[in-house]
Amino acid sequence: MARRPHQPGLDLTRRAATGLGLAMMASPSLAAGASVPRWGVHEIVLDGPAIGNPFVDVSLSAAFTDGQQTLNIAGFYDGAGVYRVRFSPPTEGTWRWRTRSNAPALNGKAGTVMATAPRPGDHGPVKVAGGYHFAHADGTPFRQIGTTAYAWAQQSDALCDQTLETLAASPFNKMRMCVFPNVAGEPIHAFAQTADGAWDFDRFNPAYFRRFEDRVRRLGALGIQADLILFHPYDEKTGFHAMTPARDDRYVRYLVARMAAFSNVWWSLANEWDLVKAKTEADFDRMGRLIQVQDPYDRLRSIHNWRDNFDNSRPWITHSSIQNGSAALDDARAEIYRSVWKKPVVFDEVRYEGDLEKRWGDLRPEDLVQRFWHCLVAGTYVGHGEVYDTRKTNAPGTWTARGGKLWGQSAPRLAFLKTVMEQGPTPGLDPIDRTWDQHLGGQPGTYYLRYFGDSAPGEWAVALPKDELEGGERFRLDVLDTWAMTVTSAPRPYVMAKRDAYFFHDPQQPVVSLPGRPWMAVRLVRLNTESAA
Amino acid sequence: MARRPHQPGLDLTRRAATGLGLAMMASPSLAAGASVPRWGVHEIVLDGPAIGNPFVDVSLSAAFTDGQQTLNIAGFYDGAGVYRVRFSPPTEGTWRWRTRSNAPALNGKAGTVMATAPRPGDHGPVKVAGGYHFAHADGTPFRQIGTTAYAWAQQSDALCDQTLETLAASPFNKMRMCVFPNVAGEPIHAFAQTADGAWDFDRFNPAYFRRFEDRVRRLGALGIQADLILFHPYDEKTGFHAMTPARDDRYVRYLVARMAAFSNVWWSLANEWDLVKAKTEADFDRMGRLIQVQDPYDRLRSIHNWRDNFDNSRPWITHSSIQNGSAALDDARAEIYRSVWKKPVVFDEVRYEGDLEKRWGDLRPEDLVQRFWHCLVAGTYVGHGEVYDTRKTNAPGTWTARGGKLWGQSAPRLAFLKTVMEQGPTPGLDPIDRTWDQHLGGQPGTYYLRYFGDSAPGEWAVALPKDELEGGERFRLDVLDTWAMTVTSAPRPYVMAKRDAYFFHDPQQPVVSLPGRPWMAVRLVRLNTESAA
Repeated sequence: MARRPHQPGLDLTRRAATGLGLAMMASPSLAAGASVPRWGVHEIVLDGPAIGNPFVDVSLSAAFTDGQQTLNIAGFYDGAGVYRVRFSPPTEGTWRWRTRSNAPALNGKAGTVMATAPRPGDHGPVKVAGGYHFAHADGTPFRQIGTTAYAWAQQSDALCDQTLETLAASPFNKMRMCVFPNVAGEPIHAFAQTADGAWDFDRFNPAYFRRFEDRVRRLGALGIQADLILFHPYDEKTGFHAMTPARDDRYVRYLVARMAAFSNVWWSLANEWDLVKAKTEADFDRMGRLIQVQDPYDRLRSIHNWRDNFDNSRPWITHSSIQNGSAALDDARAEIYRSVWKKPVVFDEVRYEGDLEKRWGDLRPEDLVQRFWHCLVAGTYVGHGEVYDTRKTNAPGTWTARGGKLWGQSAPRLAFLKTVMEQGPTPGLDPIDRTWDQHLGGQPGTYYLRYFGDSAPGEWAVALPKDELEGGERFRLDVLDTWAMTVTSAPRPYVMAKRDAYFFHDPQQPVVSLPGRPWMAVRLVRLNTESAA
Repeated sequence: MARRPHQPGLDLTRRAATGLGLAMMASPSLAAGASVPRWGVHEIVLDGPAIGNPFVDVSLSAAFTDGQQTLNIAGFYDGAGVYRVRFSPPTEGTWRWRTRSNAPALNGKAGTVMATAPRPGDHGPVKVAGGYHFAHADGTPFRQIGTTAYAWAQQSDALCDQTLETLAASPFNKMRMCVFPNVAGEPIHAFAQTADGAWDFDRFNPAYFRRFEDRVRRLGALGIQADLILFHPYDEKTGFHAMTPARDDRYVRYLVARMAAFSNVWWSLANEWDLVKAKTEADFDRMGRLIQVQDPYDRLRSIHNWRDNFDNSRPWITHSSIQNGSAALDDARAEIYRSVWKKPVVFDEVRYEGDLEKRWGDLRPEDLVQRFWHCLVAGTYVGHGEVYDTRKTNAPGTWTARGGKLWGQSAPRLAFLKTVMEQGPTPGLDPIDRTWDQHLGGQPGTYYLRYFGDSAPGEWAVALPKDELEGGERFRLDVLDTWAMTVTSAPRPYVMAKRDAYFFHDPQQPVVSLPGRPWMAVRLVRLNTESAA
């Protein structure tokens, strides 16, 4: 389970502590000599008013400065008179802070914290890199292989433990998960309830969020990004998707104040936004801009569609989160989303591996893995999901609803895919000669990947579009069986020469034989240019 | 040649005329009793200063009002001391006008013009309709079947006449054409030249524009939209693509002042904007916004790409003008452009019919026609082009360079396609169940079109996605051979019943036999709903 080395826990600075509300695992450090690793979480704990409705009545923020930049960070009420401000230093060095509040007990508090070197193995938060890809703050590429378990975090502690064990043994490095569960979980909810059982949308339930952020933190310890879905249409019972705009905004602010300091957090405004009938595109746009303003760390932001694409050109959207299963079957479809919006694209829903009698949940594992490869060639990314019938698995739920165990066959193939990605260009592959049906991804001149999907060709004419080629370049050619997870290298290098006005090839070996099976790929990797001269 | 009935010529109001510069065909009418058909052109002619550089020194505009709305319309200098203001009334009724100018001779002139009923057959300018389609101002759908002859208007009068004859016998209703020619034409240019032959970018050549607008007017007489390309990268010799921003803006203003009153004008900021290395995306964005502000009629505006898509979400862009030949081969690719930008999409370059040894000009006619059908199913539109080798045709140029005659075989098939479009839903077809690989376009519940491209199926399972169906609906089924231009109707109606969770079909005839040829389509048209009850 300790596959990933770092443990980004919390460092707590407690001032005038009451001893209440500390469900965090790390011990509080003293304000005087407080230190926190870069990208970790330093928490200031303050006592303040508990009367009235602190969620509505009390404002709290702290300005953090290292002399070069100043971050204004909202605090939040954690119940029982306890207030917290969470800070994740973007750079090393000494940071001074000072609070502002409309409550005298919380106003004008000050202190310092030393941001030290990051924990070993912590590469920092993920940002957009190279326009269409992702990388950690230290430059390490982030090769997105996401999965989806919408309400895993709201399940029993035992089931959550099992989910985390499954993830630790998987290739997945991003989890799509709901803040408000879309299926039932433990009987604890995000909002308080009145005596008659009605929701009190003006009072959050801090215990719910403490439990939720514990899951996020544990994902972080595994190096897994937590793609937090703020709204979805599937909570008709609670109506959490249909609050007033003022309450929506308060929820957004509260969530950002609690969660933004966790460096593995991504914001997903909605799952299937266009099915959230109580909200308009303008509502989500308003909340997206609010997050952009509120989040001092500028974590990644997206919004996910059902049928109707959100306007992903909006400046607050950092990357596209798309549902379109058919686009993921053809790199020439997938890349259009990239080239129109000029942002990274994650196909976060492309139908799930499973055996349900629903067309969104009946993919063979081969068909799901296929989508990842097509989208890789397109320079885009995919999210996994799995829904095997629980009457057959006897599981408490499907993976994509509640987490637990994986029952399918796609995950090991996605681990193989991830290895191929990690051996590929940095920060990622781009489509090559993209409007000419080449079905090639990579970097012109140095790396080419051709994927054949469920066609089963007996050979392929090895022809590379002319961009960045002059002739004389030498390439290693590998035949990849993406299902059997094998790599077979050609015995001789391919030496490029001009074939015609548009292509280069090796006249000595113009075609490569393929085994006539589906799910094959061919990879060409440039060999040392010195020896080509 | 008189295929189309209306002749939107010019109506000229001449005040203090000098007798110079009137190359227009219609006679000037008197200011007192002036009248012009709605959507026609009423021209005010004024004498003013001829000294200095009137193109730079003199401002002129006229405010036209019918009491409800006021249009501010820029005038322009037409050489030899003659100034013109062109007005195209958007509504019937009496319009009063008054000029403003920094030249006393042009300032404070006033008059009225009566806008009468439009000429018979004139449906008015084309606007966006139904979000993704086009219609004339009177509501008549505009079914876009465009073609391209970049420098036709700059050729000899004889060749221009031939081009217009060809168009009159063709299905084409939009012409993409350059204001600055991309290949040589008659020795007359848009700008004056200094004594040493250098371009004087501060002085337009009115004779050039009079000749050019005559071509635009004659297209209008045929009911053909003139999609005017303002810039392109292929004038290295003249450098017209590389003027200063101030001169670019002056050119834009001049063009709008001269041309906007012609109701068949569309504005295309550039051909292959991303190859115009002297300009940035911001330059084109600035000019696009300038046109939006300057053009009182709000004519359609687009910009066309080479490899790099312009940000078509910009508010000034009314529809997308895309180059992507491979997207036009698959409706599921093509429709993505629509669904992301939520605007009409015209694939204005999808490779040309021809026999050149260039991959952009070697399409068989079948392959070009195929693209129109795929895009129709996607709810998008296509532009035609033709480049047969002039060493074989002995023509003075290819159609797409200089106009003249068509040598290919696609045009009649596009006429057949247009008939199918005209019999289809208003204002156009939309993709149906678009992310599930249905390859169906139409209107759910009433009209379905399935196109098979170069596959040659022997049968098709007639299954309609459930949206807008309840069971009991009756459809006529037609098998279309889009190459042979035949329509074969099934002997019995198809009566829909639920097949499964997602589809309806007719259990009595679940499949339709097809002839195993390429280029086939199947059309289902809802029959009278009364008789279905």
